[in-house]
Amino acid sequence: MTNNETNPEWDSVPSENVVLIGKKPVMNYVTACITFFNSGGEQVVIKARGRAICRAVDTVELLRRAFIKNLDIKRIDIDTEELFKEGQQSNVSTIEITVSKADLEPKQE
Amino acid sequence: MTNNETNPEWDSVPSENVVLIGKKPVMNYVTACITFFNSGGEQVVIKARGRAICRAVDTVELLRRAFIKNLDIKRIDIDTEELFKEGQQSNVSTIEITVSKADLEPKQE
Repeated sequence: MTNNETNPEWDSVPSENVVLIGKKPVMNYVTACITFFNSGGEQVVIKARGRAICRAVDTVELLRRAFIKNLDIKRIDIDTEELFKEGQQSNVSTIEITVSKADLEPKQE
Repeated sequence: MTNNETNPEWDSVPSENVVLIGKKPVMNYVTACITFFNSGGEQVVIKARGRAICRAVDTVELLRRAFIKNLDIKRIDIDTEELFKEGQQSNVSTIEITVSKADLEPKQE
């Protein structure tokens, strides 16, 4: 598991191939992933915190079952982030799911 | 990813080293895991469906951070289960997190 530094603002600086899961319908995030792949991206990282974690899993599963049959789940990492709000510390779980398109055709020599 | 057969009753037949996450407080499930390890179990599989998925991640993270420092997350699998209720099919995402105690001391030859 990665030990990310504490950074409550991580979702304000999304990198190019990262889909951050929030409170929108799952289909919105599925569409975002498909857009990444269609624009030539090789892999997408789906990130979520707290209660959005189940929506991150829903996103990957819907993407895999309905849209990209050869989706390869490269890795799944879970971690904890420490948030500080009004002087109080609270811990929130996070998930990062890295997916890519697998080769459908076997390689020829 | 494993392709489990459709079995909506999977949580009615818990195997020995499986902790099924439901709606109880996270600490209950953490305690269940600790009990498994204390009774000599080498690994525990934490399973959850739907909205309980985030609680499964919370369980593992709390266990790792507060109780078993050398907890090793062996694998994380996500999948979809097809449930049939009143003739209607619905899909629900699942997660399985396998954890074990890692060796703290390096092996000597």
